[in-house]
Amino acid sequence: MSLAGVVMAAGEGKRMRSRIPKPLHRICGKEMIRYPVELMKVAGADRVIVVVSPDNREAIKAVLGETVEYAVQEQADGTGGAVASCLQLLHGNTENMLVVGADTALVQLDSVNTLLETHSEAAASMAVLTAPSDGPSDLGRVVLSKGGKIIRIVEASEVEGNRDELSPLFNAGVYCFKYSWLERSIGKLRPRPSGELYLTDLAAIGSRAKAGVSPVLVGEMEEVIGINNRSQLAIAEAVIRDRIREQWMLAGVTMTDPGTVYIDADVTIGMDTTILPNTILSGTTSIGENCEIGPNSVIRDSAIGHNCRVTSSALEEATMEDHTDIGPFSHLRPGAYLESGVHIGNYVEIKESRFRSGAVMGHFGYAGDATIGARVNVGAGMITCNYDGKAKHRTVVEDDAFIGCDTMLVAPVTVGEGSITGAGAVVTKDIPPARLAVGVPATIKRNLK
Amino acid sequence: MSLAGVVMAAGEGKRMRSRIPKPLHRICGKEMIRYPVELMKVAGADRVIVVVSPDNREAIKAVLGETVEYAVQEQADGTGGAVASCLQLLHGNTENMLVVGADTALVQLDSVNTLLETHSEAAASMAVLTAPSDGPSDLGRVVLSKGGKIIRIVEASEVEGNRDELSPLFNAGVYCFKYSWLERSIGKLRPRPSGELYLTDLAAIGSRAKAGVSPVLVGEMEEVIGINNRSQLAIAEAVIRDRIREQWMLAGVTMTDPGTVYIDADVTIGMDTTILPNTILSGTTSIGENCEIGPNSVIRDSAIGHNCRVTSSALEEATMEDHTDIGPFSHLRPGAYLESGVHIGNYVEIKESRFRSGAVMGHFGYAGDATIGARVNVGAGMITCNYDGKAKHRTVVEDDAFIGCDTMLVAPVTVGEGSITGAGAVVTKDIPPARLAVGVPATIKRNLK
Amino acid sequence: MSLAGVVMAAGEGKRMRSRIPKPLHRICGKEMIRYPVELMKVAGADRVIVVVSPDNREAIKAVLGETVEYAVQEQADGTGGAVASCLQLLHGNTENMLVVGADTALVQLDSVNTLLETHSEAAASMAVLTAPSDGPSDLGRVVLSKGGKIIRIVEASEVEGNRDELSPLFNAGVYCFKYSWLERSIGKLRPRPSGELYLTDLAAIGSRAKAGVSPVLVGEMEEVIGINNRSQLAIAEAVIRDRIREQWMLAGVTMTDPGTVYIDADVTIGMDTTILPNTILSGTTSIGENCEIGPNSVIRDSAIGHNCRVTSSALEEATMEDHTDIGPFSHLRPGAYLESGVHIGNYVEIKESRFRSGAVMGHFGYAGDATIGARVNVGAGMITCNYDGKAKHRTVVEDDAFIGCDTMLVAPVTVGEGSITGAGAVVTKDIPPARLAVGVPATIKRNLK
Repeated sequence: MSLAGVVMAAGEGKRMRSRIPKPLHRICGKEMIRYPVELMKVAGADRVIVVVSPDNREAIKAVLGETVEYAVQEQADGTGGAVASCLQLLHGNTENMLVVGADTALVQLDSVNTLLETHSEAAASMAVLTAPSDGPSDLGRVVLSKGGKIIRIVEASEVEGNRDELSPLFNAGVYCFKYSWLERSIGKLRPRPSGELYLTDLAAIGSRAKAGVSPVLVGEMEEVIGINNRSQLAIAEAVIRDRIREQWMLAGVTMTDPGTVYIDADVTIGMDTTILPNTILSGTTSIGENCEIGPNSVIRDSAIGHNCRVTSSALEEATMEDHTDIGPFSHLRPGAYLESGVHIGNYVEIKESRFRSGAVMGHFGYAGDATIGARVNVGAGMITCNYDGKAKHRTVVEDDAFIGCDTMLVAPVTVGEGSITGAGAVVTKDIPPARLAVGVPATIKRNLK
Repeated sequence: MSLAGVVMAAGEGKRMRSRIPKPLHRICGKEMIRYPVELMKVAGADRVIVVVSPDNREAIKAVLGETVEYAVQEQADGTGGAVASCLQLLHGNTENMLVVGADTALVQLDSVNTLLETHSEAAASMAVLTAPSDGPSDLGRVVLSKGGKIIRIVEASEVEGNRDELSPLFNAGVYCFKYSWLERSIGKLRPRPSGELYLTDLAAIGSRAKAGVSPVLVGEMEEVIGINNRSQLAIAEAVIRDRIREQWMLAGVTMTDPGTVYIDADVTIGMDTTILPNTILSGTTSIGENCEIGPNSVIRDSAIGHNCRVTSSALEEATMEDHTDIGPFSHLRPGAYLESGVHIGNYVEIKESRFRSGAVMGHFGYAGDATIGARVNVGAGMITCNYDGKAKHRTVVEDDAFIGCDTMLVAPVTVGEGSITGAGAVVTKDIPPARLAVGVPATIKRNLK
Repeated sequence: MSLAGVVMAAGEGKRMRSRIPKPLHRICGKEMIRYPVELMKVAGADRVIVVVSPDNREAIKAVLGETVEYAVQEQADGTGGAVASCLQLLHGNTENMLVVGADTALVQLDSVNTLLETHSEAAASMAVLTAPSDGPSDLGRVVLSKGGKIIRIVEASEVEGNRDELSPLFNAGVYCFKYSWLERSIGKLRPRPSGELYLTDLAAIGSRAKAGVSPVLVGEMEEVIGINNRSQLAIAEAVIRDRIREQWMLAGVTMTDPGTVYIDADVTIGMDTTILPNTILSGTTSIGENCEIGPNSVIRDSAIGHNCRVTSSALEEATMEDHTDIGPFSHLRPGAYLESGVHIGNYVEIKESRFRSGAVMGHFGYAGDATIGARVNVGAGMITCNYDGKAKHRTVVEDDAFIGCDTMLVAPVTVGEGSITGAGAVVTKDIPPARLAVGVPATIKRNLK
């Protein structure tokens, strides 16, 4: 059975108080509208149409690109108008249509599948996802007949005067329609004084036509939340974060305070790894088994092996092989690569540099555009002077060298295998292997062979 | 109608286990007693009297100064004695009197206004703010007649034996009295075995005199909490923090985890700014629009413009103009001033220094008492040696200079426009414009013109 | 009355998804199994027997050592088998037996004492600790007779089909048995299809024998939680952390956000000390009165005096005497010792070094294996070059010396009393008292006497 998905994203979202269109606000680092788009695809939608407004069209297209189709809702004529604006695109080439708002970020696949199944089994014209309500909210309500069928849906803005007669069900804002029925019926919607057509009025139309509108309950209450302001945005973020945390804990990751561990959807974490408080793992970060990550670590798009330790440090696009450790207060910038067994201490900044196996840099210093050889000991205060005001240059420290404290390596420059630099040396020329170089500028003082 | 405010602050507060008087413990950085004092003023009190004890008088006066009047409660004779100690000061020159405890930090203006209005409309002798109770607590209870009037108030310490007959209302500890009635009635209070007079006994006295005591409900349950120990102090802090967070989120600020964002009352934040977890904004800090602040940033009394980024850094009394960024692990101390477009990287400490537009200091180093010119590039490890053991001296780096890594600028000293210092240079004398200086101590090596 | 304790620790704990045996997972830094072992000892058990499996025997013995006795449960024959495996060890030399699971980490002494007293007073064969249930859970249920006696216990895995007849009581998994009755009765247990004997079936056996099985309620609901996966492990950690926080707040410690303050069980904190958010106090750390600790501080096994301040810093096995302060972003490693009045600023790393009274190191730098004399001012960028590639050497800076910025102290080396080093000096030989030394390598330039 063919299924088309429609995401209504043309609303103004004034309560977000933002220059950014509401559908593009981020939840756990991902634009809000991606959630319903991705949900529809995994739920089996053959095509997804995003209904945009003339105002937010370009911004939304810039984010979603070719992954969806677009319909433009020229006027602010409500959810009814939003769906009507898709019909031309669809041309009847679908049997069913799944319709959601752009802020449907928390509804889970299980709930949508239940909706689709119920719709299909009941051969219904319309199915509506609902949630048990327990008190006032800014969500609309579903009114049921004594037989348990939906008689009509009351929008949140119209609930006030109708409180008495409401059933205790929220409208979750997820609808499945038989396309042919929708196409026939949508013309029957009548505008409110504001000029808006309410898609939800189709429930009453279906009910009067005995077209079988049944409520379908979501799996969890938390799936149903309107995201209309930043406070609700924060709640949505918290719900998704909790789901991710729970998943990793059940998979064998220890978190001593899960509430202050922030893990993006695409992160992976190995068994028996412990994440300490106040740690942010974002982007495509992967972490191996038996690591200790945190506290106070911020790791983006990095690959960390097994048996590693990252303490109070920041990593971006960096790689740490097995049995490496870093911190506290160190910083791996893009292109930092630590081979197995490397030890990095505190206040170390590394950028576009490879530390070969067993190298040690225990104290403050900066390695940029460098290769640090195997087993090299880098003293405190070393700096690769990689920038001359115009261009960046590379530094090479060969295996088993010993870089004295406060050594300046003025790139491009090479320190040969097994060589030693004295404290405070300013190295402006290559040092051959097995030499001791000292002074400002550094000169060869001794052959160590 | 004239209104006098009375804040009872003479209690011992033993359960705080502190050398600091209870009214001076801080909530969100502000001494607890300031909350009721400020509340009374905005509620329209013409004068506010703080009832102090001989023990805490000086400490409280040192904090509140001339902003209030003081009455001294010489003996520990209870809330009745506290109010009695004010009558001489007031001399009947007020029509109504609003009385609260020093720990009334959470009650909101709306609730007090409702209390005052009810009191006024009912022409009551006494009005009491109450809250629905749901179970045991260390708050007193209000006992109602069948007609819904207050018959008497039972103190928390006396609740135990009276549990059965209690109405389900807490006493919020906020009272409004008709002054003339209070003055007449207060002499009727009878001491408890402890020698204390209970102000709350006036409820029963009023009730017997048919003087019309009505319960007034607070707006929100959380407004009513006794702050008698540090655990309750922490709860009060959390409630106020939540109110502030909610206000800024509704104004267009994104917080990915509001629970770990701490914002003082006087902080301002622009629209579309994102605050990342574990960030503390305190004092008079102002933040512009479209910034990214945090994670792990601690910002006090600083001004930050639009489109800025502060990552895992600490700022105190610093200024960042538009389009500046800093972090991670950097530290702006008092008097640090970054003009627009300045980039500060990691491990940079700046104190009493101005960085002109477009200057860059990407790595570790220290700038103290310095002016860094426009477009200057400061290499890693630069230090302004601003202290000679006796006094601090200034450093000037003119526009377009290039400071090599590990350059020591021994102040007072000037590096001329467009000049360059070599790595490891120790600059002890002024460098004219357009010169290259190198060595220890640095000498001019070349004219760059 | 003699009491033996039995901790059943032979289960597989598959849901932990771990290579570490479940009883050895840590809660608040302490292996889970230590909690019931310690609880039993303070509850008066003369001896504690831990029932291990052939698989986890060695690992558990490595942790608990000689503090307990061990019984090996050779086959996975359930809780009944676990207790049976202890009988040979006990030989009837006890009157009563307290039996718990290895994950009984949250049950408090009060609850166990109540259980023991009830058991004793009722002269019961078996007493069971229970908790009121409010809804589904993965805990077993206790079924009561109309007279309120336990008729039988239903395991969580068997609850499903029996939901209707369940009493609203959870089985807390803490049992007290009359030893003689247990020895007689345990042979009556019949295996389930899985081969497991259920210890809980003794409840029904006792009930049929009119042997008096009474439910005993725990003090707090949160005491009863099965810890079968990492999510439950995190909940257990949170409960224990909250207990510790509450204890210190009631003792006079202020926490502005207790939820992000992590305090180990053996830490001590003085009155009127404030702990700011995101602070971890672990191991044997002690903190004096009137300190400000945090935010963002991580302190392990350190001793901090009165009136100290630790801001955004990391301490391990360090000592700070009264009136010292450090931070932000500084790091005291093992053996760092700050005498009274020492001021340490930002980006300072100290290891195995003593700073005498009044010494100041305000900016970045590294002091390792050093003694820094009284009133010494250490300039920014100082490094003790303590490692020559083979061994560590000591540095001594005598009282009242002034260490210029970026001074390298190449150990072993001594800077004499009142001496001064110039910025960028590389000190390779001892400097006598009252000398000015400058240059690379440093030479004496002037006698300061």
